[in-house]
Amino acid sequence: MLKIRHATIEDVPLILQLVRELAEYEREPQAVVATEEDFRRDGFGPDPKFKVLIAEWDGAPAGFALYCLHYSTWLGRAGIFLEDLFVKPEFRGNGIGKALMAEVAALASASQYYGVKWEVLDWNQPAIDFYERLGSEIRRSWLPVRITGEALRKLAEEAG
Amino acid sequence: MLKIRHATIEDVPLILQLVRELAEYEREPQAVVATEEDFRRDGFGPDPKFKVLIAEWDGAPAGFALYCLHYSTWLGRAGIFLEDLFVKPEFRGNGIGKALMAEVAALASASQYYGVKWEVLDWNQPAIDFYERLGSEIRRSWLPVRITGEALRKLAEEAG
Repeated sequence: MLKIRHATIEDVPLILQLVRELAEYEREPQAVVATEEDFRRDGFGPDPKFKVLIAEWDGAPAGFALYCLHYSTWLGRAGIFLEDLFVKPEFRGNGIGKALMAEVAALASASQYYGVKWEVLDWNQPAIDFYERLGSEIRRSWLPVRITGEALRKLAEEAG
Repeated sequence: MLKIRHATIEDVPLILQLVRELAEYEREPQAVVATEEDFRRDGFGPDPKFKVLIAEWDGAPAGFALYCLHYSTWLGRAGIFLEDLFVKPEFRGNGIGKALMAEVAALASASQYYGVKWEVLDWNQPAIDFYERLGSEIRRSWLPVRITGEALRKLAEEAG
């Protein structure tokens, strides 16, 4: 039986484990440098930067959704930015991914948000198909961009 | 002379005007349904969902950067999500876009964030070139996805 609940600070080791499993699935296991201390500070301190839903199947952790907020200036509404969605391979086929997505959608609707936004890897066709079946829009004309590390530091130095 | 300052609630009509000009540039002028009331409520109330930097050139509004927060579970740090960056056409060529980017990078660095994240339209080659010159990474293997409107409502109804 499926149960979806909000994570507490006691779930931090589990969340980090699930983040690592997701990164392995996304073929970037070495990309996870986050620590339990990071997640305690940023998710469960005085000013939380993200929230987490945990899916349990017959009491065992089966998956999670981790999200923060986004803002659409065109729609004039906040939205949920879904950073991570993952179901452990051994629990797939039980509708857990869809149930997590539905819960996130319900949270967005209840807050009058414009919707939910996230990113998918272009080779992950099963995920793309899944999202399209839910009525999501794959926005192929928009390219994600990021500046980090040394380039960030150099650019920051040019601030007036 | 360039001055970059944080916006106040008095800037809301200006911010909406700049958002509309940006949407026109991005060939979607009809996509802006946001109102001044939306921006007052979401940007300048008790729980702000975004922040805005205004660039002024010799005292005249020349551009803006509007951002919210993101969270990277791989890096274990928050980051800035840059929703809008815009310089009015008549003020281009003065380094205002780079100065706004530098200010946003400095804000991210000062908060120990992992960096700055945003999206660019795939046909906007001048913007892509500009971002790459700053050392940004165009993450072409990630596709932005979104669920809104009727599809969101239907999905939300399936929540347990």
